[in-house]
Amino acid sequence: MGEPLLRIAEIEIDPTQLDAYTALLKEEIEASVRLEPGVLFLHAVALKGMTHLIRVFECYADEAAYQHHITSQHFLKYKMGTAHMVKTLRLMEASAIALHAKR
Amino acid sequence: MGEPLLRIAEIEIDPTQLDAYTALLKEEIEASVRLEPGVLFLHAVALKGMTHLIRVFECYADEAAYQHHITSQHFLKYKMGTAHMVKTLRLMEASAIALHAKR
Repeated sequence: MGEPLLRIAEIEIDPTQLDAYTALLKEEIEASVRLEPGVLFLHAVALKGMTHLIRVFECYADEAAYQHHITSQHFLKYKMGTAHMVKTLRLMEASAIALHAKR
Repeated sequence: MGEPLLRIAEIEIDPTQLDAYTALLKEEIEASVRLEPGVLFLHAVALKGMTHLIRVFECYADEAAYQHHITSQHFLKYKMGTAHMVKTLRLMEASAIALHAKR
């Protein structure tokens, strides 16, 4: 197993499509963490007062786990189902400094 | 107990102080999650290729837990110890869409 792969997605959604987008994102995240051993966490939030601006903080066990994720059925359903709702998408790779959570 | 409080901090560090900053941030995060019942997770990363740009994804049980955190000894040590290393700090409050992690 390699290095954990960390990514931040900054996503701007068409505000008129926000409810539909959020439903698809929730479904995709729940399925990914439940079904894929290599998806360690996915945390999606909307910025307060600008709820069409979404941030997703993503952690995969390694590059192979990430490649598996982006070819999974639930990810492809999300990706194709939301393509017309996403106005901009910025993906940033990152390195861990400290990742601590309550058990 | 109220709503979980979610926040994203975008922090730009003086590149010449990065090692010292990172050491203080690691210590603060480890202590916060270990000692404070209301600190649910703190995930700090550096952007790849721009390692002086830090993102911290923060989750507290509620507003009271957050207020407790920012008056804790370990947080104040971090805050005062790093004040001269931080060039810019942007804090964004957020609302949860989906927060899923492996147990």
